[in-house]
Amino acid sequence: MAERLQGIFTPMLVPLDEHGRINEAELRRFVSWLISRGVHGLYPNGSTGEFTRLTAEERKQIVQITCDETRGRVPILAGAAEANAKETIEACELYHSYGARAVAIVSPIYYRLSPESVFAYFREIAQHSPIDVTLYNIPMFASPIDVPTIRRLAEFEKIVGIKDSSGDVAFMMRMIATVRPLRPDFTFLTGWDCVLVPMLVAGCDGGTNAASNVVPELMRSLYDMARAGQLEQAMKLQNRILELFDVMLNQFEFPDGFRAGVEMRGFNFGRSRQPQSQAQQADRAALKSVLQCILADTGLVEPPAAGCGLRTGNVNGDKLEQIVFEVMETLRQKGML
Amino acid sequence: MAERLQGIFTPMLVPLDEHGRINEAELRRFVSWLISRGVHGLYPNGSTGEFTRLTAEERKQIVQITCDETRGRVPILAGAAEANAKETIEACELYHSYGARAVAIVSPIYYRLSPESVFAYFREIAQHSPIDVTLYNIPMFASPIDVPTIRRLAEFEKIVGIKDSSGDVAFMMRMIATVRPLRPDFTFLTGWDCVLVPMLVAGCDGGTNAASNVVPELMRSLYDMARAGQLEQAMKLQNRILELFDVMLNQFEFPDGFRAGVEMRGFNFGRSRQPQSQAQQADRAALKSVLQCILADTGLVEPPAAGCGLRTGNVNGDKLEQIVFEVMETLRQKGML
Amino acid sequence: MAERLQGIFTPMLVPLDEHGRINEAELRRFVSWLISRGVHGLYPNGSTGEFTRLTAEERKQIVQITCDETRGRVPILAGAAEANAKETIEACELYHSYGARAVAIVSPIYYRLSPESVFAYFREIAQHSPIDVTLYNIPMFASPIDVPTIRRLAEFEKIVGIKDSSGDVAFMMRMIATVRPLRPDFTFLTGWDCVLVPMLVAGCDGGTNAASNVVPELMRSLYDMARAGQLEQAMKLQNRILELFDVMLNQFEFPDGFRAGVEMRGFNFGRSRQPQSQAQQADRAALKSVLQCILADTGLVEPPAAGCGLRTGNVNGDKLEQIVFEVMETLRQKGML
Amino acid sequence: MAERLQGIFTPMLVPLDEHGRINEAELRRFVSWLISRGVHGLYPNGSTGEFTRLTAEERKQIVQITCDETRGRVPILAGAAEANAKETIEACELYHSYGARAVAIVSPIYYRLSPESVFAYFREIAQHSPIDVTLYNIPMFASPIDVPTIRRLAEFEKIVGIKDSSGDVAFMMRMIATVRPLRPDFTFLTGWDCVLVPMLVAGCDGGTNAASNVVPELMRSLYDMARAGQLEQAMKLQNRILELFDVMLNQFEFPDGFRAGVEMRGFNFGRSRQPQSQAQQADRAALKSVLQCILADTGLVEPPAAGCGLRTGNVNGDKLEQIVFEVMETLRQKGML
Repeated sequence: MAERLQGIFTPMLVPLDEHGRINEAELRRFVSWLISRGVHGLYPNGSTGEFTRLTAEERKQIVQITCDETRGRVPILAGAAEANAKETIEACELYHSYGARAVAIVSPIYYRLSPESVFAYFREIAQHSPIDVTLYNIPMFASPIDVPTIRRLAEFEKIVGIKDSSGDVAFMMRMIATVRPLRPDFTFLTGWDCVLVPMLVAGCDGGTNAASNVVPELMRSLYDMARAGQLEQAMKLQNRILELFDVMLNQFEFPDGFRAGVEMRGFNFGRSRQPQSQAQQADRAALKSVLQCILADTGLVEPPAAGCGLRTGNVNGDKLEQIVFEVMETLRQKGML
Repeated sequence: MAERLQGIFTPMLVPLDEHGRINEAELRRFVSWLISRGVHGLYPNGSTGEFTRLTAEERKQIVQITCDETRGRVPILAGAAEANAKETIEACELYHSYGARAVAIVSPIYYRLSPESVFAYFREIAQHSPIDVTLYNIPMFASPIDVPTIRRLAEFEKIVGIKDSSGDVAFMMRMIATVRPLRPDFTFLTGWDCVLVPMLVAGCDGGTNAASNVVPELMRSLYDMARAGQLEQAMKLQNRILELFDVMLNQFEFPDGFRAGVEMRGFNFGRSRQPQSQAQQADRAALKSVLQCILADTGLVEPPAAGCGLRTGNVNGDKLEQIVFEVMETLRQKGML
Repeated sequence: MAERLQGIFTPMLVPLDEHGRINEAELRRFVSWLISRGVHGLYPNGSTGEFTRLTAEERKQIVQITCDETRGRVPILAGAAEANAKETIEACELYHSYGARAVAIVSPIYYRLSPESVFAYFREIAQHSPIDVTLYNIPMFASPIDVPTIRRLAEFEKIVGIKDSSGDVAFMMRMIATVRPLRPDFTFLTGWDCVLVPMLVAGCDGGTNAASNVVPELMRSLYDMARAGQLEQAMKLQNRILELFDVMLNQFEFPDGFRAGVEMRGFNFGRSRQPQSQAQQADRAALKSVLQCILADTGLVEPPAAGCGLRTGNVNGDKLEQIVFEVMETLRQKGML
Repeated sequence: MAERLQGIFTPMLVPLDEHGRINEAELRRFVSWLISRGVHGLYPNGSTGEFTRLTAEERKQIVQITCDETRGRVPILAGAAEANAKETIEACELYHSYGARAVAIVSPIYYRLSPESVFAYFREIAQHSPIDVTLYNIPMFASPIDVPTIRRLAEFEKIVGIKDSSGDVAFMMRMIATVRPLRPDFTFLTGWDCVLVPMLVAGCDGGTNAASNVVPELMRSLYDMARAGQLEQAMKLQNRILELFDVMLNQFEFPDGFRAGVEMRGFNFGRSRQPQSQAQQADRAALKSVLQCILADTGLVEPPAAGCGLRTGNVNGDKLEQIVFEVMETLRQKGML
């Protein structure tokens, strides 16, 4: 029986050059940097990697470069979802030949399929893939994979785990309680960075966490502390990660906040392929300084030259902000702006 | 076989005095005004009437006053939902004794019940009510009533119709196609003012429309035009009603926009029971002028002294508004406001 | 100023051969059949055409074949959405060279983007496309396009219309009321077959209706009747279309019900690319007979040899049918069938 | 500064007699039983207590009996939500006079209010209540209370805590991180029994857990183990509670599963006020035996005479059980059982 995948797998962002093409040199530098910072594995072509905005050819190129640069130092979990089951199986074969440890396959996207169809799709892949398969459940973007379906799929030997990005701790507990008795080797990973510690407490094996692109050292520490049972210390760090995650997730279009974060760490990732309005571009520049302050708190980067104000506990500031917001809103609704 | 309920039933707002108590004199004046303006019936204790914010005693008082003041001039559809089936049945008996034509009973609120439980609830009432019952489906606030359940309930003689506030024309068509062959006397009313004409084209019998509190004459005209087959003219008016409805619905907390509208028509309805912040109170005063402009367009009230600007077609104004909004938003998110 | 697109545009299903490849001969036969049955235009690469399950190469092949076979007999609205704006613009150029009348571009999929990002995406395309662009709003599957965004986008000359598949009549009215004053040439099409008549009454220009793959003659008649003001007759047919649409939509995984329907009309479309369990395949065979009965009612095909029972007004029959269906479904899901 | 409320507060179910009236004797017996089994406090008139199905008079009676029977042995958190702010404040005064420790007030129900209105509502109460107030957030049934609103409300001294029934661990962390620096005395309780341990790890003070009506000893043990840092042992028990919770929550209409559970413990709680179809009543009888097996596993009751099959790891058995359940359900829904 195979060993479970464990630890922090980085769902890698993709660096682009000034023409919007994959920046291979920067990608190679990023791969080695992540490994040197302690992540347990790499996960190219995830949602953070904007796999749907790449061409089929580019997705292959990214896995090829990642495997080549990694040279076996850490296991690679390669996102292999393509337009349909046949194309996906071909990607499985290719990534197997590249030396990936396993593939991750998102549940069918766009159409919202029934559990029966989700089952049929993964069964087709399980029966033909030469490489181990992890399911990828992200119900906000793709057809949900429910607990009975996971259980049915766990009967296929080639299916070895699931990555869940719902962030629902009870759902994770239900999956583990249902599948682990049948398949002690089945891996459970969470994609919801801000509850990694509670998830580990609940029995999860690790995470594929977007934040590990930006703070790989901290995500690794968080994992190590939780595993060592240092929960109080772990929760302190978890709360900082929550703060960072919320800024990167909520104040940008996903995954732009994480792209901004990686640039704070000394990489040149270029513009996302999703066009932005001028307002959004201005936004990004300004918000980088907030991010820089948060990163500076943990000693990972220098604080901005202008310094960092207080971020919490400043109720009066928040009140003022809210009043101004509401006045503007009112004026706006009345056509006075 | 009874005749179907038809036309515009006003889900009446409730006037409150300066102490927050029901203003009986104003309520009586309002009842007679609505009748004189041509609505086909009255519907006290609906969602527009904020039935959940009244005590059980007050709900009874409102139906009693409404029936008394109406003196049979128009049929009354009395909202009779109480805390549980037993209390609801007692309200049915009471409203029957007051002379109401029928009661309207919202599907169980708070808990979201299964179709089987929704059925059991209405069956209990249908078996004990001395007065005709219309179902009230408002899935955004209460347990949804689905088509198979409506069909099962249509087998009870005492259940004579449904008021649907989903605004979904296809759902209305499905209900009518399913129930009318079995119960030609079954009434279908829509609570979604802005699609009254399409609903009437689709076979609906009329509406219980919040806007008829504010512009009873216009809702009556809309109904009459649609019934007379003057669809082009009807759609023109329907588009004005849409504009008015959207302002009253979206720029206020429901039903405050409608309360503001009624005050434009010369009534003193007082403050809603839902507390408001100072900002919201300022808001209401300012937005009344927008409303007044819309009402003035149809000749129902005088325009405000300050005049009315253009409301549509002003793209540049809108652009400016959006830019300012986004800048403010950005500043705010950065803690600079 | 260009003329508005009007009438019924068929969002074409894709015939596949026994190897799962595009069946060009059958596709050509289907194109000509649809035109001969009276549809006003063709719409390859829509959701009904399962564009996300095709490779980029296959999407191009389908538009090329469709344009070639059509030979200008009807306008072609080609689905041109690709992985990102750059790839999409290249598809626009290609389809322009093929002779398509316009392209339809779905709002960004997978990630749920903010209105500002949806705007930026379509602006990028509008500024570079050589061919007219229609927006495609399908909020259940892709990032929603709201009314303010539509209004901003209507300022780009290359953007000439919107196809909306929300089925929300009030939303259609809001779009039309907002955009038509500025752009009288802007086209509004509905993708929600079962409310085509109410949508046309509300001012819509036509539909891109999946049902027109199966009953092109009936969808054309429906459009003609509504345009001629024969609303009573139109609503009668609309109710039959509703019944057919609901069976094809709800009792299958989309668009398999429509694929089953086309086969009833004498085409060999093969299996969908979405794998099916054995149970689902049995299901399809059984439900085809229900579909055949509905189609037989309108004289389009022969009734099945076993005959057709009553479908409406027959509560006990329907209950029995439903219970059998559900028991079978359950057994099926357990793998016991 | 007051001490935080901590531990397990039971949101008490309400025993009814054969006439559907409150069964005072059984209620008193239940209060003392819960206290004797170790719960830290009592919480009458919560969602589990079906407060919306009681009359205003009955809600008062329940708090009065609970306070009287408790005689100060444990603190009482009394649900005080009434039809509007004025009535709610009067209930606060009354429950203060009864000796309750604090009140819990659900966010406004039925209408879905904006954060500004939720704020205005609780501010009104905070300014007039003579007794400490805990907010009650249950977004599936009532207007959601978001983090900025909680923060604004935490500035009112009378507001001393929040009970959250969203089950979202990240949301709990956000609330705590935002409010605790300003108000170290602020209490955070979770109403989502199945993640109590992860919630306690995340910093929560305890729970108002429906399951503590049925297994007060186990919920108390769970809390004690988590507090003592015995997380492995705690998670084992948490998983059993999850299993029990899921059966009681999902296989019944809420809170009927919990009512069935309490009866297993030797109480006579009578029928819920929500009418049930015959099928639902049969259902309840059958499912009690499942529940009894789960309870028997932890030694709290005797196993049923017929014995208990394996419940986990037994895929075929579970499949069979599920199929039988679903077939029965179907027959039931058709009224054939």
